[in-house]
Amino acid sequence: MGYAAYSGALDIGGTKILAGIIDEAGELVARKRIETQAVRGPANVIARVADLLRELAREARIPVETLASIGCSVPGPLDSARGVVIFSPNLAWREVPLAALLSSELGVPVKIEDDARCAALGEARRGAARGAQNVVYVTISTGIGGGVIINGNIYRGSHGCAGEVGHVTLDANGPLCACGNAGCFESLASGTAIAARARQAVQHGDETMLARFRDEPALLTAEHVIEAAEAGDGVASRIVETASTYIGIGLAAVAAMYDPQLIVLGGGVVRPDGALLRRARKTFQERAIQPLGALVRIVPAALGDESALWGAASLINTVV
Amino acid sequence: MGYAAYSGALDIGGTKILAGIIDEAGELVARKRIETQAVRGPANVIARVADLLRELAREARIPVETLASIGCSVPGPLDSARGVVIFSPNLAWREVPLAALLSSELGVPVKIEDDARCAALGEARRGAARGAQNVVYVTISTGIGGGVIINGNIYRGSHGCAGEVGHVTLDANGPLCACGNAGCFESLASGTAIAARARQAVQHGDETMLARFRDEPALLTAEHVIEAAEAGDGVASRIVETASTYIGIGLAAVAAMYDPQLIVLGGGVVRPDGALLRRARKTFQERAIQPLGALVRIVPAALGDESALWGAASLINTVV
Repeated sequence: MGYAAYSGALDIGGTKILAGIIDEAGELVARKRIETQAVRGPANVIARVADLLRELAREARIPVETLASIGCSVPGPLDSARGVVIFSPNLAWREVPLAALLSSELGVPVKIEDDARCAALGEARRGAARGAQNVVYVTISTGIGGGVIINGNIYRGSHGCAGEVGHVTLDANGPLCACGNAGCFESLASGTAIAARARQAVQHGDETMLARFRDEPALLTAEHVIEAAEAGDGVASRIVETASTYIGIGLAAVAAMYDPQLIVLGGGVVRPDGALLRRARKTFQERAIQPLGALVRIVPAALGDESALWGAASLINTVV
Repeated sequence: MGYAAYSGALDIGGTKILAGIIDEAGELVARKRIETQAVRGPANVIARVADLLRELAREARIPVETLASIGCSVPGPLDSARGVVIFSPNLAWREVPLAALLSSELGVPVKIEDDARCAALGEARRGAARGAQNVVYVTISTGIGGGVIINGNIYRGSHGCAGEVGHVTLDANGPLCACGNAGCFESLASGTAIAARARQAVQHGDETMLARFRDEPALLTAEHVIEAAEAGDGVASRIVETASTYIGIGLAAVAAMYDPQLIVLGGGVVRPDGALLRRARKTFQERAIQPLGALVRIVPAALGDESALWGAASLINTVV
């Protein structure tokens, strides 16, 4: 009984792995981080992750097999009921029975969940949306994804696809999206879309500090565009303004559908005090169906790169 | 005890009022219909509705005050928790404490709910989505509205506005919507949008059987356009095709957000076997994020103009 109150949490991502041990009060008593690049293939990752948890448990003086459970965040699509990663482009995994493999390695029950859903749950339980019952987490990075919390729990939909906010059409005549559709939120406002617009401007010969990437356009990222905009670059500012307008319109669509208490914005593209968030909020307030423009708050994620780890730690307490 | 299993159901709409009495097996044992135009103002409507239920109860040989409860569908916005119609443009009501007034008139507890939510619940419990846990009902008539069922119950959102599917932007540069935003689903695909496009074509002098409305454009409705399209009119067919494309795109947005088991289409504009539904389905299958294009079924409402009445009958069994 003495040990049963501890549980494990994992966030296996494309660039990093986070591991933690949580006590009965829900506090992280120990955590470790490694870079994913150092470890390749599902078997190696699972072995390394198991070692990480064993190390953490040893340091916390808890036999690892006495952990009550382990919650694990992983990029999807996945089947949380079966515990199988169906296909994860970020990890280059296909049909990996992660929960079963990790569970037999450590002798502890394992629950897995999609990373955006874990981040949503983490922010709803411990972060920017603490205490809210209905929350949509929207992550804007290379792509645009989402996680939905309804009545305090993860909402997955009938086929595990709820919260695909990046693939809502915002401009029926807009640019082609990687998904094959036209004018998706993701094709208009993701980091990839921001970088693509900047590359076009550079190739077009526009006067901008981003022109230094003319010979190596592949190195030009959304972060460079945002930095240039914050440094006063006109071309970069217009690109950020276009993206933030579409972010505002996309969040207005989220609000009209879900009417959440708040929308939490995560992902590398969104800086808590940046112009992008400020302008997106303004567009949201102008565009959202009344009275939601004034009622639904748009807030940046509060747990940094630990949103999903905290969500993984909470998986044991969710209704599946 | 003998009587307590019976309950009442009401659907107060802009054009008609339906009343019913339901037995313990959930069957409608008696129903009546009157036209709303004949009755003006909240007090008159409430008095007439109470009479209707008394008549029904008398015919069913049940003292009306022994009804266990009455569920009532009414056009919103409304506050279902307080039982108050906040503002109903369809009825021209403002701040009407409908539940309290009706309850004190009949001596029976009354629950009220928005008509689109009642229709969603009715279709999920008894109609086209019977047995499904996650369902979105979309009504396409003068405007476009929605009702969302999650885990078998009505989902209202944090401010009572969930399911405002008509006000999701589908074309950021599209026509102005009545809500003040641009390119809303409703501004592109509602009956009002269909009629507006037809009026433009007629004013423009296009060759169409709808030209008979040139001198009285206000009489031209979406129904006329759909009839003309089905009779082979080219101009009308193109208008219906445009609307059905946007309906497909809008339903793809609904699927990406909610991933329901199915989407139920109601409202006067959608005919179960019409070209509009067929084309909307085709666009949906092409545009929805995979694998939802193939998994989420688009079905017409099955309860005709009784969807909301059946939902009202089920309100007693929902978690509020």
